Amino acid sequence: MRVAVDAVGGDHGPDVIVAGVVAGARRFGVDLLLTGPEAEVRRALSRIDTSGVKIEVRDAPDLIAMDESPAQAVRRKTRSGIAIALEAVKKGEAGGMVSAGNSGAVMASALMQLGRIPGVDRPAIASPLPSMNGYSLVLDLGAVTDPRPQSLVQFAQMGSVYAERVMGVAHPTVGLLSNGEEATKGNALVQEAHALLAVAPGIRFHGNVEGRDIPRGIVDVVVTDGFTGNVALKTAEGAAALVAEVMREELTSSLLTKLAAGLLKPAFRRVKKRIDYSETGGALLLGTNGVVVIAHGRSNVTAMENAVGVAARACQSGVTEAIAAALLVLSTDVA
Amino acid sequence: MRVAVDAVGGDHGPDVIVAGVVAGARRFGVDLLLTGPEAEVRRALSRIDTSGVKIEVRDAPDLIAMDESPAQAVRRKTRSGIAIALEAVKKGEAGGMVSAGNSGAVMASALMQLGRIPGVDRPAIASPLPSMNGYSLVLDLGAVTDPRPQSLVQFAQMGSVYAERVMGVAHPTVGLLSNGEEATKGNALVQEAHALLAVAPGIRFHGNVEGRDIPRGIVDVVVTDGFTGNVALKTAEGAAALVAEVMREELTSSLLTKLAAGLLKPAFRRVKKRIDYSETGGALLLGTNGVVVIAHGRSNVTAMENAVGVAARACQSGVTEAIAAALLVLSTDVA
Repeated sequence: MRVAVDAVGGDHGPDVIVAGVVAGARRFGVDLLLTGPEAEVRRALSRIDTSGVKIEVRDAPDLIAMDESPAQAVRRKTRSGIAIALEAVKKGEAGGMVSAGNSGAVMASALMQLGRIPGVDRPAIASPLPSMNGYSLVLDLGAVTDPRPQSLVQFAQMGSVYAERVMGVAHPTVGLLSNGEEATKGNALVQEAHALLAVAPGIRFHGNVEGRDIPRGIVDVVVTDGFTGNVALKTAEGAAALVAEVMREELTSSLLTKLAAGLLKPAFRRVKKRIDYSETGGALLLGTNGVVVIAHGRSNVTAMENAVGVAARACQSGVTEAIAAALLVLSTDVA
Repeated sequence: MRVAVDAVGGDHGPDVIVAGVVAGARRFGVDLLLTGPEAEVRRALSRIDTSGVKIEVRDAPDLIAMDESPAQAVRRKTRSGIAIALEAVKKGEAGGMVSAGNSGAVMASALMQLGRIPGVDRPAIASPLPSMNGYSLVLDLGAVTDPRPQSLVQFAQMGSVYAERVMGVAHPTVGLLSNGEEATKGNALVQEAHALLAVAPGIRFHGNVEGRDIPRGIVDVVVTDGFTGNVALKTAEGAAALVAEVMREELTSSLLTKLAAGLLKPAFRRVKKRIDYSETGGALLLGTNGVVVIAHGRSNVTAMENAVGVAARACQSGVTEAIAAALLVLSTDVA
């Protein structure tokens, strides 16, 4: 199996991306198709050990900036790393693609080049977030800021298939993110979505969940609009970082605390590993006809390594085909 | 100065509330007016040391359950602890009130009994949340789930007055919570509000901020709709609790880590104090004609003690009058 990687997207440049995805390819046993300006990609490759990894480089001279308008970029720059990687997925030359580039451009390109799975109005960005019992899958994390209530039902159905196929959860439960547990709570969107989810086929609906229930891991899948999901994800990241920073300040405040903290370094590392929001490596764009992994713009080597793992697992589990099959059955049920 | 307290609202009952607010009254140098079924309140008082605190008990026999419909409760139960406490504020017998009871009922009662400050469409729930540099004031935390864009401008103006008067921040900056920093980011509400805030008088508008910027403390005041604000607050609480819980697990995993962690107990306590989301003690309902503090339903003794402090500071700073004056000037400016 082969994963296509946009080797030039992201804040840190091709050296970081290439080093990360080559390590990921080795770890997860996949081949790589790297897209980007050929000379630049080859230069990055020349700096690292690529032994044991099958790599093809495909030239993609157009560069899309991180803050460029996605709509314009996609129209004008048809030979970007993003576009060439997606083309390979479409042609079946790669099982999936990874990009840490302009996420709006990745979404727009993926929609245009791969198209939507029948029954999906809008694709959603999904990622497992750390919780007390491991991970909860949260979607949408930013693809659709103002979805219709029906879209949240599709998010719930897609998320359930992902949790079952990729995360190995049997009969996953779904919660609707709201400002209170009662069915009457929520803004207009959530109240309408709640009524639809309560009778939607193909999901185990738990009811409303609150923000604190994401880290608590009350349900397997949390559905929300892309605006709220993005705010919640970044707030959780920020709160965890705040705790870490205040802890660092207090534990280095005296010689005694420094000594004791030194003894606890391995324990702190384990904590960090269990709660690192970058460890998951990338979010999956669910709802297009293909595996598309959207990595953080500021992904480091480890995050890019993990992003290849996300793509590999999604391909191997056949999650795209499973979503298509599930939505076909569910829409037939209704008809 | 006197603070009225609904002594029966909250999950833990009158003993916890009364013990907390009596400690708060002593600490912050205020008198108390306790409302609730008289015998119950007196029984709670008999169990603690009330020396040095001037306390009046006023009978309020109607009980409002935590999950009762606010609209019905307010209509039918005109002699609840909430209603009698607000009545005292309205008559000037108390400078402000505190309740850990049904927050919907507190808001509905406050609107009905105290009325809105002229120029305010909808009151907002505001609370300082922990950040790298101390606290950022966030509003709305749950009063209005679907506000108009104009309401967010009023939230910004009220929040600025609060930050200046109560938190002592000179020329506070205001950020609009969104899913990206760029002005083009946001859902429909945020995009419209951004345009209004960019030209609104009486505030220092920084632009959009992201979820992670709340714990980072990038701006002094963060405005958002009550749905998103509530999700963000609870997600931050939950993420901080997750870090604490995972830390506890890892630090008690062996004898060595237990010993070292024992040495760090005072440092951990300082961390907890700096990041405890309950330490702030209560949120202020900004926009009604009076000081109304909404405490968490599950407030413990410390939280109730702090809630009295929030009410006392709000009264002493004259924040209600300052908001009324500011909105009068600002609306005259526009006219």
